[in-house]
Amino acid sequence: MKYAVLGTGQVGTTIATKLVELGNEVTIGSRSADNEKAVAWAAAAGDLADHGTFSDAAAAGEAVFNCTAGIASLDALRAAGADNLSGKLLIDVANALDFSAGVPPTLAVCNDDSLGEQIQRQFPDARVVKTLNTVNASVMVSPQQVPETTVFLSGDDDAAKAQVRVLLEEFGWSPGSVVDLGGISSARGTEMYLPLWLRMYGALGTATLNIRVVH
Amino acid sequence: MKYAVLGTGQVGTTIATKLVELGNEVTIGSRSADNEKAVAWAAAAGDLADHGTFSDAAAAGEAVFNCTAGIASLDALRAAGADNLSGKLLIDVANALDFSAGVPPTLAVCNDDSLGEQIQRQFPDARVVKTLNTVNASVMVSPQQVPETTVFLSGDDDAAKAQVRVLLEEFGWSPGSVVDLGGISSARGTEMYLPLWLRMYGALGTATLNIRVVH
Repeated sequence: MKYAVLGTGQVGTTIATKLVELGNEVTIGSRSADNEKAVAWAAAAGDLADHGTFSDAAAAGEAVFNCTAGIASLDALRAAGADNLSGKLLIDVANALDFSAGVPPTLAVCNDDSLGEQIQRQFPDARVVKTLNTVNASVMVSPQQVPETTVFLSGDDDAAKAQVRVLLEEFGWSPGSVVDLGGISSARGTEMYLPLWLRMYGALGTATLNIRVVH
Repeated sequence: MKYAVLGTGQVGTTIATKLVELGNEVTIGSRSADNEKAVAWAAAAGDLADHGTFSDAAAAGEAVFNCTAGIASLDALRAAGADNLSGKLLIDVANALDFSAGVPPTLAVCNDDSLGEQIQRQFPDARVVKTLNTVNASVMVSPQQVPETTVFLSGDDDAAKAQVRVLLEEFGWSPGSVVDLGGISSARGTEMYLPLWLRMYGALGTATLNIRVVH
């Protein structure tokens, strides 16, 4: 499978590395073709790894991971190009954290809308699935660090969610750990969880944390 | 111990009943002195139970539970009277859910403020502790239904939080289940968790649910 990973931060490189380890071809995308982090990642990650602009990456991928900073995601996806996203699975793991007023950050969108919905609205031909945004990069691909905890799915396309479910299991999430919250509007729930996550991070002193839903 | 419980809905009567079962004197408060639900509750709950206006209840209580609907809490507390709250522990379990635009509700306050903070600002002499707002009424007083799950504390007064911790243990929460998130501004975290709770309720089909923090 060919993946585009948009974003060269810790989330992007962690996801991209995991996808390569699983045998996928990955093009990591960034604003400029010669982004140093992207070049370095591709050089280190082996023959299955490539780099390019957001547009290069999205064109090369059969599925696309949005790992850009949430407040920059819509711009990044516009740079990737609607045509390059059309019909494709678009896995959105971003949170629209706004640090402009300091710490703790606020959310640039919440309550009656969400980043996931904004992306789906702006790219109606993409099959958007929101997931993994409730954990940090390390936990995303190594969930055994926080055993039997929960990961969420939000999206309007059931087939797309089923595809993501398989990928989550390849990442190490057990089938029982996945909770499908419903349509993409349910991304409001997982995105608005971030302030609690940030407070728990502060209180517990570790970002290797997650929640287990008990019912 | 003498408690005021403001609010005669499911949360108020559940908390009030539990407090009476634990041997406390409880005055349940509502907008009018002859509120039918309050009269009925007090008649059924025995000699330790009384009812009255918000002001009657707050005057009688050494500690006050805010169990009113979040969007009405500031009005209810103003009716209770700042003098009747001064110096007292004020346990706020409310969420400012706004159903005016239908279901799912939005939050009337979030992101850069919270109901907990609004209450503390409006009643600076009350010792506000936000807790229990992440679970439904039944789980609040019967946490063994969702074993070893987490309950949060937010508040600026450490002694007040210590007092609430003891009460939570009397309610059945184990010491290890209590996570102190910090000052009252951390109520933003637990209040903004509500949209996720509501989506989980929808997806899982039960309100007897909670999260366990794993780290």
